[in-house]
Amino acid sequence: MPFVNIKITDDGVTAEQKQALIKGVTQLLVDVLGKNPQTTFVLIEEVNTDNWGIGGESVTQRRRGGK
Amino acid sequence: MPFVNIKITDDGVTAEQKQALIKGVTQLLVDVLGKNPQTTFVLIEEVNTDNWGIGGESVTQRRRGGK
Amino acid sequence: MPFVNIKITDDGVTAEQKQALIKGVTQLLVDVLGKNPQTTFVLIEEVNTDNWGIGGESVTQRRRGGK
Amino acid sequence: MPFVNIKITDDGVTAEQKQALIKGVTQLLVDVLGKNPQTTFVLIEEVNTDNWGIGGESVTQRRRGGK
Amino acid sequence: MPFVNIKITDDGVTAEQKQALIKGVTQLLVDVLGKNPQTTFVLIEEVNTDNWGIGGESVTQRRRGGK
Amino acid sequence: MPFVNIKITDDGVTAEQKQALIKGVTQLLVDVLGKNPQTTFVLIEEVNTDNWGIGGESVTQRRRGGK
Repeated sequence: MPFVNIKITDDGVTAEQKQALIKGVTQLLVDVLGKNPQTTFVLIEEVNTDNWGIGGESVTQRRRGGK
Repeated sequence: MPFVNIKITDDGVTAEQKQALIKGVTQLLVDVLGKNPQTTFVLIEEVNTDNWGIGGESVTQRRRGGK
Repeated sequence: MPFVNIKITDDGVTAEQKQALIKGVTQLLVDVLGKNPQTTFVLIEEVNTDNWGIGGESVTQRRRGGK
Repeated sequence: MPFVNIKITDDGVTAEQKQALIKGVTQLLVDVLGKNPQTTFVLIEEVNTDNWGIGGESVTQRRRGGK
Repeated sequence: MPFVNIKITDDGVTAEQKQALIKGVTQLLVDVLGKNPQTTFVLIEEVNTDNWGIGGESVTQRRRGGK
Repeated sequence: MPFVNIKITDDGVTAEQKQALIKGVTQLLVDVLGKNPQTTFVLIEEVNTDNWGIGGESVTQRRRGGK
């Protein structure tokens, strides 16, 4: 009954890429822990780069600075 | 001081339905645990069906397949 | 396919109270949004009162102060 | 390696205010716990006032009622 | 800069299994989205079966009932 | 009505350090966004270093390797 929450920046991730993440994470939980895929939830949340910080700066600022 | 986070698919949930969820969850915490409603938070997050997976597929894919 | 996360202080909540929360929240999602209970997850997390703050103080401090 | 998730209502928070939150929280973790800012993540999520409840009402309802 | 939160029941998951989950999820984000592993966080949370509900029952109840 | 969730490794953080985090984050939300501290929640979650991954390795492994 695992629940997986993936938070990523909203950089135009396609529906196909999301399907690949969902499929891959679910398979990983089957392979490593023997979990039932039918009760495995995966939830992807896309976050604006203004709202994501690392090193005390937003990702927007970091990219502007070439980091 | 409970905090409740409800994640659901974004299927046109109305403001009235959201109010019913907020009221019902808060009352449940009062009834079962004697919590103070004034310090009970409820937060509803609506997630696109492309971003929600179960059984290794997105909800978009599952609905297309008639599941 | 809802996912509900309930965070409460760890005040000796019993297994019966947890079952009442799980049952009540699931029923609420059935009643208000017509969700399928078989794909409704509820997750209860109990948090130490030292680790929970409100009004700039921990719940431990607030209770000591009679709040 | 801290991860901080700030959930606030979506009241037109500016990019500058978000940067101030990211910078301030990161500095706090450096000052109090000696954490490395380069592996400190801050994530801000903005929530519609219909989706946020307190005291059994949505924030939208509370504001309408002058609370 | 992804952040992945995996919530599973606390069924004696070993440190080796946790390492396999961390390694696998990180690699998936590299493969599907080209993310930098050095800024990819994975966080595993283990939840007691009394605290996890599905179908309106706790996992403890479900297992007792042979589900 | 902000809600702040701080996840850190469980390295013997003291009650005093937790109070400093709660106080500091609450004050930051007052200063930057004019929030009411009485409806500001801060929740600290401490995570075992086996359960926290970065760069594809658990923090336990990274520390063993001198990172």
